[in-house]
Amino acid sequence: MPELQKEQTAITPTRSQDFPEWFQQVVKQADMAENSPVRGCMVIKPWGYGIWEGMQRQLDERIKNTGHQNAYFPLFIPLSFLQKEATHVEGFAKECAVVTHHRLEEKNGQLIPTGELEEPLIVRPTSEMIIGESFSRWIESYRDLPLLINQWANVVRWELRPRIFLRTTEFLWQEGHTAHATEKEAIDETLKMLEVYRDFMENVLAIPVILGEKSPGERFPGAVSTYTLEAMMQDRKALQAGTSHYLGQNFAKGSNIRFSNKQGEMEYAYTTSWGVTTRMIGALIMCHSDDDGLRLPPRIAPKQVVIIPVIPKPELETEVLAYAQIIADRIRQENFYDQPICVFIDKRDKRGGEKNWEWIKKGVPVRIEVGPRDIKAKVMMLSRRDAPHKDKIKIGLDQISSEIVNILESIQSNYFAQSSQFRDKHIYHDLSTFVELKQFFTPKNEAKPEIHGGFVRAKWCGDIETEKMLDELKASIRCIPLKQSGTEGKCILTGAKATMDVIIAKSY
Amino acid sequence: MPELQKEQTAITPTRSQDFPEWFQQVVKQADMAENSPVRGCMVIKPWGYGIWEGMQRQLDERIKNTGHQNAYFPLFIPLSFLQKEATHVEGFAKECAVVTHHRLEEKNGQLIPTGELEEPLIVRPTSEMIIGESFSRWIESYRDLPLLINQWANVVRWELRPRIFLRTTEFLWQEGHTAHATEKEAIDETLKMLEVYRDFMENVLAIPVILGEKSPGERFPGAVSTYTLEAMMQDRKALQAGTSHYLGQNFAKGSNIRFSNKQGEMEYAYTTSWGVTTRMIGALIMCHSDDDGLRLPPRIAPKQVVIIPVIPKPELETEVLAYAQIIADRIRQENFYDQPICVFIDKRDKRGGEKNWEWIKKGVPVRIEVGPRDIKAKVMMLSRRDAPHKDKIKIGLDQISSEIVNILESIQSNYFAQSSQFRDKHIYHDLSTFVELKQFFTPKNEAKPEIHGGFVRAKWCGDIETEKMLDELKASIRCIPLKQSGTEGKCILTGAKATMDVIIAKSY
Repeated sequence: MPELQKEQTAITPTRSQDFPEWFQQVVKQADMAENSPVRGCMVIKPWGYGIWEGMQRQLDERIKNTGHQNAYFPLFIPLSFLQKEATHVEGFAKECAVVTHHRLEEKNGQLIPTGELEEPLIVRPTSEMIIGESFSRWIESYRDLPLLINQWANVVRWELRPRIFLRTTEFLWQEGHTAHATEKEAIDETLKMLEVYRDFMENVLAIPVILGEKSPGERFPGAVSTYTLEAMMQDRKALQAGTSHYLGQNFAKGSNIRFSNKQGEMEYAYTTSWGVTTRMIGALIMCHSDDDGLRLPPRIAPKQVVIIPVIPKPELETEVLAYAQIIADRIRQENFYDQPICVFIDKRDKRGGEKNWEWIKKGVPVRIEVGPRDIKAKVMMLSRRDAPHKDKIKIGLDQISSEIVNILESIQSNYFAQSSQFRDKHIYHDLSTFVELKQFFTPKNEAKPEIHGGFVRAKWCGDIETEKMLDELKASIRCIPLKQSGTEGKCILTGAKATMDVIIAKSY
Repeated sequence: MPELQKEQTAITPTRSQDFPEWFQQVVKQADMAENSPVRGCMVIKPWGYGIWEGMQRQLDERIKNTGHQNAYFPLFIPLSFLQKEATHVEGFAKECAVVTHHRLEEKNGQLIPTGELEEPLIVRPTSEMIIGESFSRWIESYRDLPLLINQWANVVRWELRPRIFLRTTEFLWQEGHTAHATEKEAIDETLKMLEVYRDFMENVLAIPVILGEKSPGERFPGAVSTYTLEAMMQDRKALQAGTSHYLGQNFAKGSNIRFSNKQGEMEYAYTTSWGVTTRMIGALIMCHSDDDGLRLPPRIAPKQVVIIPVIPKPELETEVLAYAQIIADRIRQENFYDQPICVFIDKRDKRGGEKNWEWIKKGVPVRIEVGPRDIKAKVMMLSRRDAPHKDKIKIGLDQISSEIVNILESIQSNYFAQSSQFRDKHIYHDLSTFVELKQFFTPKNEAKPEIHGGFVRAKWCGDIETEKMLDELKASIRCIPLKQSGTEGKCILTGAKATMDVIIAKSY
């Protein structure tokens, strides 16, 4: 690949030309994932999976630190279990993979399913009903509460319009499931995990999020209330990055999760569930990346520093590689958030420029070039992914140990500052009527819709029926933010008196 | 639960009374796992899952250190893919979960599967065929080789006689899949991973294993050769703890994995696959546990040290807990195999004796009791799980930091020494005829079979047809050990001249 001219970008099209296609190209050029021959299912390639492993490690630590234990429950849910909570089954019936047979037999040269099951099995779309069955046996008395369980697993929801990382038939996630003796404890847990997610998304993924409650129309099927973390992507649409549900006693009644309280009376437990998925990788891409490809916050990058040796003549190879190794060893001795910095020497037999562009497109935070002249001068040329790709900083060999953590820290906070600034700029407080709202969400050129819109923060009267007005605008109430202004105004949908602040946006 | 008398054991029945039931009771009393309402699927509870997490962490590190990268492939395999390798589909057709529909609809108050798929999907029993499809696209030239991929996943093989941890319809595993330019490289890889497994099993799980090749009748469906690690359980049966397969070009031909070699000619790649599963937890139990329950090697125990505070009067609680905390902090500062020692203060509101027995049955390597008198004397009472449960060692507060790693190390090597000694004692070299073999594998009392048999190391002529003679004895050739004696003798099955050493045993 020839080195790009200044005005060219590594990704075609650019964000402003065609955002959805740009997203697909970033995924492809960074070699993160690809569609598989199984409709709606993706293959997560090593670079994408490395990001997921970083998410798992750092989130798992937070989930354990808040007292939860990991366990594992069956992939299959008997059909009858799903029916135990009426709203729940209604929400998932239309997107279930159903196992009906347990063997294959050859007939006339063709393999056909045989051994029909007495009761069909559903591949879990979520595990409330199968985990609830265990909880009903594990919980006897208030002494067994709270019960705090988490599971890392794959789940399946049949997708008619799949999109890589954002909406896939199979995806990976963690799902927390807890049971409590009181409503208050269960609500506290729901909000505590929302805060764990916020901390993770803002401080690790560098994605600013708005915490809020979902309106009734957007609740998890069967929940009493659903809380969400809404992030703004660079096309100004909202992405729900995680959810935490307070389930009241609905699921406890369906699964018969009861305990004897301190007075010896039997009560239904109060339960919660909460989860985040591989969708976060989609959020990461659309929040930070630019027209040269992926940009990874250092805390989640599978490789934080890549060293590219420049070897003009074969006889210089040993010397240059030895120098690269010295630099790598020094960097590896430094810790970034309690982990040794992950540094990689790219010794592959490829041109330096080609390697450089590969790592730019993969979003590696820091690239270091070293050649024969650098050895003599005891320096190296360092490029930051948050700076223009031709910018190089000369750093002395004796400075790298003391500088590298600061540089990574500065890239991390830069990404968060940039995405916060972008988001805040596109939160609009000054719309007040439905006509204005309609205009705001309508592209100027329907044939070739430009990036438009944003988050509208406005008043809503809370009348469930009025939410549907937003369908016409292809927008929705994303959440009722936890931080309310407390002021009074007019409902942006009906004009009625209203005090509730909501966020309205188009979404993924 | 009352404290046990000396002659009683915590687990009923004992190993010698009824080994299979003893196994179930150890699992239950240690709260590791349970059967689920989904036939053949288990729920892995936190204590069991903690062991699996320890296995994952330590094995994943070894898999990455040998150059492999993790990725993730679809749960579903289209039926037509499975058919690409004839022997392969034959091996798995009888135990496949088949997805035939993608939604549910209510008819006459009943939910029924609808949305029939054009092509049924198989829930992966193993991923050669779906990963092979990716490999066929990822590999173009010899420069793309070797391709070294690993996946952590759940797989499903329909089990008619399920048994917890040992044979379950759904199980967790890792599956490595690699492609190479030459036969030699692929065979080297197959054996390298066998050695990685050996190191992990012997040095982490403290389970001695015999490495060898499977006889043709026991090969992985479609493989050219299958290598295995065979461990002896305490009922002297063999358990296959892991396998590594050299697949030749069989799967490359089925999936069209081709590359252009240095001469520019197209060639089929040589592939391998290798895996270990949650079955290792079953091996761990049956190798080390005793009639008081589980015994965990320190390197795999989710909690390595448990401190049990003894509080005779409520007013002494603060003081005793503060002292327990001091001990915990000192222990936690020590590293055992590069990890801080995992110590837990059991503050639950239960009697000390009850707690003590819980931790014995859960197999925690070290228990420490501390009471008011110990504070004044600056000591603690330490119990090792590898010693009789009433044995207590008095250790000074100032000695614990320097002693604890040695104690854990000594328990670890004790378990390995004990299981090696047991195994070696029950490898028999002096059987030479089929009549002797039959006698050896026949219980003296058929009605109530005692623990009998062992591993027979004998000569085999290699004639595939003769293997079936062992069916009658409910035994099989477990492997052809990599370490061959090189001597000549007579085949134990036929009396013919033979040089090949084999291990014959009953197995799981």
